[in-house]
Amino acid sequence: MIETDPGAKHEHGYIHNKDAYLKRLRRIEGQARGLQRMVEEEQYCIDILTQVSAMTKALQSVALGLLDDHLNHCVVDAAREGGPEADIKVKEASDAIARLVRS
Amino acid sequence: MIETDPGAKHEHGYIHNKDAYLKRLRRIEGQARGLQRMVEEEQYCIDILTQVSAMTKALQSVALGLLDDHLNHCVVDAAREGGPEADIKVKEASDAIARLVRS
Amino acid sequence: MIETDPGAKHEHGYIHNKDAYLKRLRRIEGQARGLQRMVEEEQYCIDILTQVSAMTKALQSVALGLLDDHLNHCVVDAAREGGPEADIKVKEASDAIARLVRS
Amino acid sequence: MIETDPGAKHEHGYIHNKDAYLKRLRRIEGQARGLQRMVEEEQYCIDILTQVSAMTKALQSVALGLLDDHLNHCVVDAAREGGPEADIKVKEASDAIARLVRS
Repeated sequence: MIETDPGAKHEHGYIHNKDAYLKRLRRIEGQARGLQRMVEEEQYCIDILTQVSAMTKALQSVALGLLDDHLNHCVVDAAREGGPEADIKVKEASDAIARLVRS
Repeated sequence: MIETDPGAKHEHGYIHNKDAYLKRLRRIEGQARGLQRMVEEEQYCIDILTQVSAMTKALQSVALGLLDDHLNHCVVDAAREGGPEADIKVKEASDAIARLVRS
Repeated sequence: MIETDPGAKHEHGYIHNKDAYLKRLRRIEGQARGLQRMVEEEQYCIDILTQVSAMTKALQSVALGLLDDHLNHCVVDAAREGGPEADIKVKEASDAIARLVRS
Repeated sequence: MIETDPGAKHEHGYIHNKDAYLKRLRRIEGQARGLQRMVEEEQYCIDILTQVSAMTKALQSVALGLLDDHLNHCVVDAAREGGPEADIKVKEASDAIARLVRS
């Protein structure tokens, strides 16, 4: 994957909450392993679907957190600095929001 | 979690595709680890969000597959056998669909 | 639009709740008119978005109701009658569910 | 409904595209009427669900457009002016995004 924004590395909004995000993502990884165990043990389809919905919600919640941090830091900072950078940041954020809403 | 339907263990629709589901879930587990690496390396928020959307789509696709297998086997079989079991199966399936649509 | 299933007209599950569905759809039509009024009056974007989310939820709820009625009647009936019709009905229902989950 | 932001009336981002939004919302109102006709005529459930999905997509597309206009104007302008207003605008936008993603 292309590192879209190498220069801004130290200002990413989510960095302030890095440990919390890592913890949530490790829990999501655990949910993926739990689903494999359920399939291995041939558990009931509806129970597996319930866990898939819970995992999807957890992922969406991480996405909404990252997006909020991004708007609060990267987008607001770019707007303050002025210039065309703010337009690019808003376009990127809008595209990411569309992908989330449609996924 | 409660095993909702212990008696029907051997007929679950998805069993026919068990290996394929396990492979897809292992790939999803890999995506969860990839996201942790991206956060560790402090990659760009928008790039992380793109990966979260891809992972959400992969999870939804597993859910839609499981649901299709469930309708084709558990629900159709219960309808054929007659009795109140079909109503219960349809109610369970509708509730699972509602959770998916709203997650 | 192609009428996919002309022969089964009298058995559609939702017919039993026809008046309730019409009432809900009229309310949704009213929400669409309310949104136009908000845009005409140049109301605040976030307030408009709140109404769009409420309207989307109302639509989804209609869809989930129709789907539940469909599974309970058309799919269960086709399964009981036996033959290839049940497979076709389940395939149609799964495709409709996928469109809902992805929309 | 409470007019959350009366003072900023003349700067709403979507105003530049007001006619286009009104046109899209009138088409959505027409889709709501079309759905009532389908139910009145007792058309096939799956065909009705297809139209519900199309209408949901049209609504989501309006929401994503409004949100993009909002970020480009209200949020960027508030960030440029400085002060606590930018935080409030980002919080509002994040909440609206969460409602969209979860609806």
